[in-house]
Amino acid sequence: MPTLSVFLDVPLAQKLEGSLLKTYKQDDCPNKIFLAYRVCMTSEGQPWVSSVVPKIRLQISQDPSLNYEYMPMMGMKSFTEASLKLLFGKYNQVIVENRVGGVHTVGDNGAFQLGAQFLKIWRKDSRIVYIISSKKESHGLVFQDMGFTVCEYSLWDSKQLCMDPSVLLDVAEQAPHGCIFVIGNIGDCKLTQSQWARLIASMKSKQIFPFFDIPYQGLSTGNLEEDTGFLQYFVSQDFEFFCSQSLSKIFGIYDEGVGVLVVVALNNQLLLCVLSQLMNLTQALWLNPPTRGARIITSILCNPALQGEWKQSLKELVENIMLIKEKVKEKLRLLGTPGSWDHITDQNGPQSYLGLNSQKVEYLVKKKHIYIPKNGRINFTCINAWNIDYITQSINEAVLSPEGSE
Amino acid sequence: MPTLSVFLDVPLAQKLEGSLLKTYKQDDCPNKIFLAYRVCMTSEGQPWVSSVVPKIRLQISQDPSLNYEYMPMMGMKSFTEASLKLLFGKYNQVIVENRVGGVHTVGDNGAFQLGAQFLKIWRKDSRIVYIISSKKESHGLVFQDMGFTVCEYSLWDSKQLCMDPSVLLDVAEQAPHGCIFVIGNIGDCKLTQSQWARLIASMKSKQIFPFFDIPYQGLSTGNLEEDTGFLQYFVSQDFEFFCSQSLSKIFGIYDEGVGVLVVVALNNQLLLCVLSQLMNLTQALWLNPPTRGARIITSILCNPALQGEWKQSLKELVENIMLIKEKVKEKLRLLGTPGSWDHITDQNGPQSYLGLNSQKVEYLVKKKHIYIPKNGRINFTCINAWNIDYITQSINEAVLSPEGSE
Repeated sequence: MPTLSVFLDVPLAQKLEGSLLKTYKQDDCPNKIFLAYRVCMTSEGQPWVSSVVPKIRLQISQDPSLNYEYMPMMGMKSFTEASLKLLFGKYNQVIVENRVGGVHTVGDNGAFQLGAQFLKIWRKDSRIVYIISSKKESHGLVFQDMGFTVCEYSLWDSKQLCMDPSVLLDVAEQAPHGCIFVIGNIGDCKLTQSQWARLIASMKSKQIFPFFDIPYQGLSTGNLEEDTGFLQYFVSQDFEFFCSQSLSKIFGIYDEGVGVLVVVALNNQLLLCVLSQLMNLTQALWLNPPTRGARIITSILCNPALQGEWKQSLKELVENIMLIKEKVKEKLRLLGTPGSWDHITDQNGPQSYLGLNSQKVEYLVKKKHIYIPKNGRINFTCINAWNIDYITQSINEAVLSPEGSE
Repeated sequence: MPTLSVFLDVPLAQKLEGSLLKTYKQDDCPNKIFLAYRVCMTSEGQPWVSSVVPKIRLQISQDPSLNYEYMPMMGMKSFTEASLKLLFGKYNQVIVENRVGGVHTVGDNGAFQLGAQFLKIWRKDSRIVYIISSKKESHGLVFQDMGFTVCEYSLWDSKQLCMDPSVLLDVAEQAPHGCIFVIGNIGDCKLTQSQWARLIASMKSKQIFPFFDIPYQGLSTGNLEEDTGFLQYFVSQDFEFFCSQSLSKIFGIYDEGVGVLVVVALNNQLLLCVLSQLMNLTQALWLNPPTRGARIITSILCNPALQGEWKQSLKELVENIMLIKEKVKEKLRLLGTPGSWDHITDQNGPQSYLGLNSQKVEYLVKKKHIYIPKNGRINFTCINAWNIDYITQSINEAVLSPEGSE
């Protein structure tokens, strides 16, 4: 009798992402362009790496004093300390009062995984997670797999073509008591003072637990402090919160995903309890986090000259993003493409919405071989001197085509 | 009104491990010795690193052709391929028939985490996990946290001072239908042909799913093929199984925990289904695994000269372990310490049982400042020319002391 497989009932899983890239790679058209890379690209079409990183890589490889033993479970202490100072600023009250701590994690998904496990165990009444961001986030899955009810809301208003903070306010007012808010990109929303007050009041009265997502501090505005300034506000309002701090993208070490699960508590004693529980959870998750990326980042952040060089490289990257956006807008204006296109330059960061509906996007993919996700959110650093004319002319064509016009 | 903390009910967690090392570090005695490092040590008391690794590290840092983009979710393909060939041998039927695959994971705990998540979803009737190994394994926690019932059995017979495969046979005969067996160190047990037949018969008839643990291929016998030979037997008996393959320890890159969750299925179609589901799970766990360690290992395994050099370094390490064990035994004999001490050299690998009861161990820790885990299992590579006399004399003293003698 032939053996029956244990895996007989396991179906082929649908791919969750990457199918656009796969179609792009299979496309034989010489003009094909992919505008959805997750990483920032240089004007030569290569993944961006901060100029300071290769030097440090080499230096670390040649350092005979380094040992390659296991890290403690919490990860590299100097790394989390440097990362927290970057996130909050050296003199922030949570640092001075010793009530912020971090666990070195495997990328930002690792931070969400760890944080979600903690919340599942220690906030048994919090079973609903609201994810409010400018796009669909992969960490929705993390919470879902763990049994949370996940509701996702987009801050992007595809009709008005702008970020709409009222989504966040409405959700906060309608959400049940004690739920969890995973908040991304809130720094890119311009909340008025009264909107802030409304948000804080709702979140306080309902004891909503905030879990912030900082995927790339500095890449929104080019200013590291400005990008995370809103955290200060939550600190000043006596919130306790988690924060997923990802550092790979802002150094250009994408293959060494390093992140920090940041914990802000009301006092040091509470913090130590939370960190001790998190440490036990990391043991089951990955025991010791990989150190390579953390070592590179720590070497840079702990040396003022290198830190300066890195900040400069980040600033240049952001200036380049702004320049590309300006050029795209200008070229569309010169082509007479209907619409204002101000929304392109109004958005921060490398990833922004083109503001095209799905039919127009399909037109670009199918007819022009320009690969764009269905929601029309592209990575502007994929546009360079060689492809900008083809891209803007194609957008113009798509907008003018009768397909998908209202 | 002061704000109440969200974390008010979170107690300080008990540390799961590391307290012995902490006590050792706090000890002021100049003679103190720690014999429980997780990594192999050189005769100079430094963590062992294969001589080929520093060269590769440097080479990789200087290679301008490498890019540092995100890896695919399944990890580095060349790495998993090379690892599978190492585990099974190039011409193994599962490789030839294309029915073995692997997912690049964050260390071996990552492999257990991923495998356990899969089994939880796709083997809903398998809720009991038996962990059968020579020592308490940290992955028991992984399964426990996920809601499995975990039963642990030790292969070490502390009375007879030997590995006892009958433990495994008895558990297999008493275990319920459809349970999961996490099996470590089975290669170190000398099963007779009839014992093998009994084991296979029980596991087959009860559809027990094997999940093997290969923490350090080659470090048991010094022979890479011999250490994992038992896998061939399970393959030949048409078993489907998982295997956690850890590679950090055998290259000496402890801080870049890299592992592979190995999947063996009855055919390629089944394998692809399982791998596709695992890929979706990795997205929530860590999205992309870190590549540094994988890159180092792949560079070595894919170059015959480097692979030869690495194998030689591993062989020397194992020969050194055997030599240390012989010397310890010899010195105890010369001291006239009661007992045969053959069990020291009869055990394979760097970590072996001294065969002392907990009172004798306590004597060594408290009176001689020699730090040994309660079960008396030590890392023999921590013993070197400078401390061997003190250690053997102390063991002699402990054995002769009236404390804890029967």
